[in-house]
Amino acid sequence: MNYETIRKDCCQANKALPETGLVDLTFGNVSVFDPSAKVFAIKPSGVPYDQLTPESMVILDLEGEIIEGSYRPSSDTPTHRYLFKQWHAGGLTSIVHTHSRNAVAFAQAAQAIPCLGTTHSDYFHGSIPLTRTMKSGEVETDYEWNTGKVIAECFEKNDPLMIPAVLVRNHGPFAWGSSAEKAVETAQALEIVSEMALKSLQLRDGAASVPPYLLDKHFYRKHGTTAYYGQPKKP
Amino acid sequence: MNYETIRKDCCQANKALPETGLVDLTFGNVSVFDPSAKVFAIKPSGVPYDQLTPESMVILDLEGEIIEGSYRPSSDTPTHRYLFKQWHAGGLTSIVHTHSRNAVAFAQAAQAIPCLGTTHSDYFHGSIPLTRTMKSGEVETDYEWNTGKVIAECFEKNDPLMIPAVLVRNHGPFAWGSSAEKAVETAQALEIVSEMALKSLQLRDGAASVPPYLLDKHFYRKHGTTAYYGQPKKP
Amino acid sequence: MNYETIRKDCCQANKALPETGLVDLTFGNVSVFDPSAKVFAIKPSGVPYDQLTPESMVILDLEGEIIEGSYRPSSDTPTHRYLFKQWHAGGLTSIVHTHSRNAVAFAQAAQAIPCLGTTHSDYFHGSIPLTRTMKSGEVETDYEWNTGKVIAECFEKNDPLMIPAVLVRNHGPFAWGSSAEKAVETAQALEIVSEMALKSLQLRDGAASVPPYLLDKHFYRKHGTTAYYGQPKKP
Amino acid sequence: MNYETIRKDCCQANKALPETGLVDLTFGNVSVFDPSAKVFAIKPSGVPYDQLTPESMVILDLEGEIIEGSYRPSSDTPTHRYLFKQWHAGGLTSIVHTHSRNAVAFAQAAQAIPCLGTTHSDYFHGSIPLTRTMKSGEVETDYEWNTGKVIAECFEKNDPLMIPAVLVRNHGPFAWGSSAEKAVETAQALEIVSEMALKSLQLRDGAASVPPYLLDKHFYRKHGTTAYYGQPKKP
Repeated sequence: MNYETIRKDCCQANKALPETGLVDLTFGNVSVFDPSAKVFAIKPSGVPYDQLTPESMVILDLEGEIIEGSYRPSSDTPTHRYLFKQWHAGGLTSIVHTHSRNAVAFAQAAQAIPCLGTTHSDYFHGSIPLTRTMKSGEVETDYEWNTGKVIAECFEKNDPLMIPAVLVRNHGPFAWGSSAEKAVETAQALEIVSEMALKSLQLRDGAASVPPYLLDKHFYRKHGTTAYYGQPKKP
Repeated sequence: MNYETIRKDCCQANKALPETGLVDLTFGNVSVFDPSAKVFAIKPSGVPYDQLTPESMVILDLEGEIIEGSYRPSSDTPTHRYLFKQWHAGGLTSIVHTHSRNAVAFAQAAQAIPCLGTTHSDYFHGSIPLTRTMKSGEVETDYEWNTGKVIAECFEKNDPLMIPAVLVRNHGPFAWGSSAEKAVETAQALEIVSEMALKSLQLRDGAASVPPYLLDKHFYRKHGTTAYYGQPKKP
Repeated sequence: MNYETIRKDCCQANKALPETGLVDLTFGNVSVFDPSAKVFAIKPSGVPYDQLTPESMVILDLEGEIIEGSYRPSSDTPTHRYLFKQWHAGGLTSIVHTHSRNAVAFAQAAQAIPCLGTTHSDYFHGSIPLTRTMKSGEVETDYEWNTGKVIAECFEKNDPLMIPAVLVRNHGPFAWGSSAEKAVETAQALEIVSEMALKSLQLRDGAASVPPYLLDKHFYRKHGTTAYYGQPKKP
Repeated sequence: MNYETIRKDCCQANKALPETGLVDLTFGNVSVFDPSAKVFAIKPSGVPYDQLTPESMVILDLEGEIIEGSYRPSSDTPTHRYLFKQWHAGGLTSIVHTHSRNAVAFAQAAQAIPCLGTTHSDYFHGSIPLTRTMKSGEVETDYEWNTGKVIAECFEKNDPLMIPAVLVRNHGPFAWGSSAEKAVETAQALEIVSEMALKSLQLRDGAASVPPYLLDKHFYRKHGTTAYYGQPKKP
């Protein structure tokens, strides 16, 4: 068995989904990319989380060929593959897809999630974008690949690591990061932020976004060279 | 003891109800039909879930005669029986009734659940119908049997296995499937979809249903001969 | 130690409150009445639920004298005492007070809980009443006793065992029954019904109450001589 | 190792945060002040709760000097320090910061939490105040210290032990008390009260606050020399 690290990380991150309450039944999947081998591991389709093992992960290359694996990969595989092709050069190595309930509510209401507070600002440098409506042809043929395309369209002018999540309209959230652990944490943060935003909008329709200087303060307190949250990295 | 398979499946599925959070106190029941013997097993009325055993399930035929069992069957038995009579030929073998909270909210608000996203489309080919108001005579006499009738009226033009759930007005949900396990999973999916729809409508009153081509894509990704979700069936 | 049965029932019912999720911190109490001795057991004030023992319950008579007990009884004791004085002849033997969140929301919004469905009808023969505003004099002197009075005012024309719960305005719910177990179950049902009603009203402002014949059908399916829910009582 | 008591109390209180459901991921921190030594213990920044030990707490004095500790203290330390400087003379010895979801919803909606019921009145003598918008200069330089300042501004005319919590606008709640245990309990009460208020306002926009005599009755039932809730203090 090759690709042990991404197999193990991918298995562990998939198993984390039901434990964090992000995922019901089999509504979610995680992939992990190996930058040197240019392949990724992904969850097998429809297999319950408690039955997953590192061995059961499916390994594919960026052209969609199955390199190793006896299971059929997640039906969402082409979406993950599209995004790895676009973004792996920027350091993105893991993608998480869930149907977490509050994030789905925004996706179904066709609303981006506005940045209403510092919890949001700690993780995302601005509102969480919403993909456009997909046309019938885009759904009928190569649906999952085209889902990747409409996601990427939202980041033509933005760095996906500055806003590491998106809402696919009428569907649900994708989140990502520079490791499987960070991608799962980001998916959790997204769901928490969604619940907070939904309740804030319930209290005040049209609640105001945070001022840009507060957004910058919180985002850069945790990210980049000026970060001062957490412990110093060990040399 | 006869009918061991349906007794066991029925017992296990009833016990799953409180574990999945679908059911509080004793507000729910599951039945399982045996197509060859044309009898069904159902939960005994008012017995706590943790006391259920395969032996305590009640076995009835389609005319409502108790074939085996020392307990009084669920008070909802005639509803289950009506639906098995109508639909068993189409392959339906299990029915689940719960008072799960978000689905009940739609039933009490007298609203069908619109299909707002792909989570819904993965399980139900369209909105979840709402039964009509029952007349006083229909409630006063043969209430539970008539509940089955008004449910069946909602499916005169639809296949109950394409939309495997209904909301009984002012009451709550029934869901079903081709196995006890699938019926319970469908009841879970219904509650999740209800929560998502309620929150979506809170964010946007009159949120739009999914386009028909997206509904078809997701439903047929999981159902029928063109399905490509999950692992291939073993021969 | 005397009054062992009511001590034991009272202790067990108080301990059930946090287990059912009805109570946070120390926001709730249960009392149990002994019809032959005309005394009742009640939770000691401010003691955490996990430290309660049958011995720590406080025994009082209907004039408010402490018969047995080394602890100070719940500060809500005069409310319980008022209601036992009024209603014990009718068979009421246990009272539960909680601050369960959805029932409190109705009490704080100064709204009775309308009977929107069969879950409500199974337990309560009509809407859950709301007490009137208490005057400053009624709050400043004998507050807890006067709380009992305004509760009883809501039942001048109704049998408290037909609608075994009330909302104290700006405060929260009291529920009761003919045993400690039933009173706790009723408090649970009240909270569930409150959540369902809140969500129904969110979906449809002014959702309609159930027709009277459906209310009767469900209430009398479970109560009185015509009940057919559950197993026959053993002789 | 010195300051064992505040280290132990601080560690235990921080560990209580995820157990009470108040805190997700690492979104929260507790500090504990030693009135005789005039130093305080605080959580190390970004360290998961399950890895905390009394030894890992950071000890600082009121000028912000680290007295003991090998970790970087919470990035919110200057806020805690500002408040201890202002208020320790009044008996405040512990501060809790969380991003609990319902309290954050009010902070993001820029709404003080009105006192709608007795649950609120039991803990807080009036509505929970909301800080003013911080100016760009206040955020860009000495942000966390200035957060303490805008909190203190809300209490210029109020005793912080009469209303032991605040909402920082677009951010979230801080709560405090005369011990770590009380401060955590107050943070829990704040979150519960927030959920109840949010649901009450959902049922009735503009729900009325409690009358002043009811607020006084409940607050002074639990606080001050006239309190009669709970057991008498042991001599």
